Amino acid sequence: MFDSAELGHKVDKETYRQKEPILRQELLETQYQLLDRADFPVVILLGGVPTAGKGEMANLLMEWMDPRHIASHAFGPPNDEERSRPPMWRYWRTLPPKGKIAILFGGWYAGPMWEYLSGKRTLEFEREIERIARFEKMLADEGGLLLKFWLHLSGDVLKKRLKKLSADELTAWRVSDEDRWFSRHYEQIIDASRSMLMRTNQADAPWRVVEGEDAQFRALSVGEQILDAVKHHMARPSVRQMRVETAPLLPPVDGLRLLDTLPLDQNLERNDYKAQLEAMQGRLNLLTRHPRFQDMAVVVVFEGMDAAGKGGAIRRITAALDARQYRVVPIAAPTEEERAQPYLWRFWRHLPAKGRITVFDRSWYGRVLVERIEGFAPRADWMRAYGEINDFEAQLDDANTIVVKFWLAISKDEQLARFQSREQTEWKRFKITEEDWRNRDKWDDYITAASDMVDRTSTLRAPWHLIGANNKNHARIRILETLCDAIEARLGKKEKKR
Amino acid sequence: MFDSAELGHKVDKETYRQKEPILRQELLETQYQLLDRADFPVVILLGGVPTAGKGEMANLLMEWMDPRHIASHAFGPPNDEERSRPPMWRYWRTLPPKGKIAILFGGWYAGPMWEYLSGKRTLEFEREIERIARFEKMLADEGGLLLKFWLHLSGDVLKKRLKKLSADELTAWRVSDEDRWFSRHYEQIIDASRSMLMRTNQADAPWRVVEGEDAQFRALSVGEQILDAVKHHMARPSVRQMRVETAPLLPPVDGLRLLDTLPLDQNLERNDYKAQLEAMQGRLNLLTRHPRFQDMAVVVVFEGMDAAGKGGAIRRITAALDARQYRVVPIAAPTEEERAQPYLWRFWRHLPAKGRITVFDRSWYGRVLVERIEGFAPRADWMRAYGEINDFEAQLDDANTIVVKFWLAISKDEQLARFQSREQTEWKRFKITEEDWRNRDKWDDYITAASDMVDRTSTLRAPWHLIGANNKNHARIRILETLCDAIEARLGKKEKKR
Repeated sequence: MFDSAELGHKVDKETYRQKEPILRQELLETQYQLLDRADFPVVILLGGVPTAGKGEMANLLMEWMDPRHIASHAFGPPNDEERSRPPMWRYWRTLPPKGKIAILFGGWYAGPMWEYLSGKRTLEFEREIERIARFEKMLADEGGLLLKFWLHLSGDVLKKRLKKLSADELTAWRVSDEDRWFSRHYEQIIDASRSMLMRTNQADAPWRVVEGEDAQFRALSVGEQILDAVKHHMARPSVRQMRVETAPLLPPVDGLRLLDTLPLDQNLERNDYKAQLEAMQGRLNLLTRHPRFQDMAVVVVFEGMDAAGKGGAIRRITAALDARQYRVVPIAAPTEEERAQPYLWRFWRHLPAKGRITVFDRSWYGRVLVERIEGFAPRADWMRAYGEINDFEAQLDDANTIVVKFWLAISKDEQLARFQSREQTEWKRFKITEEDWRNRDKWDDYITAASDMVDRTSTLRAPWHLIGANNKNHARIRILETLCDAIEARLGKKEKKR
Repeated sequence: MFDSAELGHKVDKETYRQKEPILRQELLETQYQLLDRADFPVVILLGGVPTAGKGEMANLLMEWMDPRHIASHAFGPPNDEERSRPPMWRYWRTLPPKGKIAILFGGWYAGPMWEYLSGKRTLEFEREIERIARFEKMLADEGGLLLKFWLHLSGDVLKKRLKKLSADELTAWRVSDEDRWFSRHYEQIIDASRSMLMRTNQADAPWRVVEGEDAQFRALSVGEQILDAVKHHMARPSVRQMRVETAPLLPPVDGLRLLDTLPLDQNLERNDYKAQLEAMQGRLNLLTRHPRFQDMAVVVVFEGMDAAGKGGAIRRITAALDARQYRVVPIAAPTEEERAQPYLWRFWRHLPAKGRITVFDRSWYGRVLVERIEGFAPRADWMRAYGEINDFEAQLDDANTIVVKFWLAISKDEQLARFQSREQTEWKRFKITEEDWRNRDKWDDYITAASDMVDRTSTLRAPWHLIGANNKNHARIRILETLCDAIEARLGKKEKKR
């Protein structure tokens, strides 16, 4: 991986003087084309050996191109807001919108690398690497261009450089304790890096190792690779063109789908309901005031047909909570800023901090429900969403954010009755639209899509809870109970670990 | 202020049982109208005496209305990101978009109140109060509805309540050390609060003091006031209708405007330029590596006619900086999310943290330039912007963020020459559009507007620097020098303070 980058590559002054202005102008023009098309973002990740020129390279790129459309991000220790959410949250925040460029120092590799070096947590390191690979795959699938550079120096060259820099009063400040530490443990770090780079060398996002000793070689190498990659990416057939060929998911040959088999008509008498509601709300309230609740967070997801009772169920939950503690996020069409980002971006931004609860009224599952059925997302896009969603929810779970997902199931007759009743009640009319009737015509498609969804995303860590909801009272109690059980289980689990 | 709220107000159970369902339904319907019109946001601020029911009231409002369109925010000690920016930054982040509701606990009153009580910083308290009054005026001018409630208890009632709550094991957790402290210093705190409330009692946003002892009285009082206020706000004539009558700003009767009088043709030879450029960039770089630079931040603003050389000047600044340290923010038309917020919101979100630099390529001054000239903003709106902007910049300055503003001035002939040269250079063509030619036709309007702008926003703390820019070399050196001087002055000032 690094051998070719220890050969002593060099570009002489004359060649650089000839090539630099041409490269620079082409980069600038290409940047403006990118901005003009605004159909994909470019992420340039700079990693490598200290003093191999990461900072200089970033400065040069900002100088060559228009810095108004480039953002750069370095990552120190996570701040309060970042620490209170899954580790990848901070990186999602720095993703550039379509048409723009971001330069990330180290990026999502910094974390696992330090983890690996600071101890023997090999398993966690492995898992982080897997996670990174999947994250990068997602970026590529969303159309993004990710360019990963490793600026390299051999151990000897690094040692000499640090010595020289330290000797001169004017440059000594450039050498940090971290750099010296790196130099002392060079072999070990390079071994770990090699395995990390090799594991994350994907066709969509290969590592580009560049020898960092000669500034002119480095500059032209990185610059030309960026130019070439962006041009290639622009020339690709569009995502939609590329993906029509994926084979569809077929419904079971006998037509029997999971969601056809649910019992829907469980009963619960009004008096029993009242008593149980109060008991459950009290239980939920107490759980959220448990001291250890401050170390966890809760994401509640509601999906189901129109008029299945999502709103009413949500209000029975929130009524038990302190207003300071929760947020309800209704998911409708994405905003302009959200459309310029990968699909999951708009959910990442709403994740609860520790001690908080976010209730999603509809969710990321829209990808495999309405977007699948209406053809808003190409088939390959919603099909890969199953895996991406499972990965997303696993990250939440790892960060001690439990994910509690409800599918509220009603019969087609019950929906009709509720639609009609809404139309007859003055102040409920806002709740029923033309679109609801159109969706109803696609009832069967929704049952098929939702059955696939449950099959493919009901994981052990974030299972779907299928709630028969023809009787609202029954549904509400079951939902509260399930939520309480889930929180209680997590509070108990933490205790054992300690 | 508080006398009427110590009378022992009460609503009996029967009245409450009759009125509550009606109020609740009306609130819900009104909330949906608000959402549907989406032309103003509602901010409900809840302050008051401990145990007077702030939390309960918020919970009730979330229960009565649709919690999916209400966000609530409590404010503890500021976190890392908040501490690194002006104090109001955290409140700007919580403003709801048009059509939505936010409930803020204490909101922007919490800070100055504690400051006042914790010491004798009367002057700072006074200034904070002024700032709050202006902020609330801005919210109202932007069309927002701000409802400020103070839930009150007399000192005796508070004491009794705390005693009762503390005595019962099940409720003792509700009483915090802070509450006890409040109770012990009741008189003093109430005196300070009274003066604070009286000072911030504006026609657009009066305080509504509600006795908090009886839960039913409290609930109906707050609920009905909210309902009434939102309905009134909806019935108002639209902002545009109300404001056409403001008198215009007239140009000087002799026609001589500030920006007509600038020298534009200062010269600087290429060789001198090169030497000075390197010296200035070196100086800037050193300044940003000064240890005390980590305690300050820099906002640089560029305004000027099209082709005045903003982009080139920005690149000469950024070339001297580390890519990790700055961000260039080009200001174009606001996005959907930005349009749903007060005008300055989209600049607040880009403010640099300590140790960082943000360069705005065009800025909040668009309000009094292009928006004034094109009529995008009603006259009353851009006229009040002068004061709002001065206040905004003063807040930055207070937080040790210096604001360095450049107006790049070129002659009309010089602009023509640059436009023509751009059209003749292949890779510069992206820089010249139809709109640039249309703006050029309004040259005179721009000079008038920019002269007014400089007159009204060149404050001692954030003066305008008017740069003759027919000669690009000269302009770039002057800009770098001015920026260096400004940073140096602030670094020096901090030192003296210590």
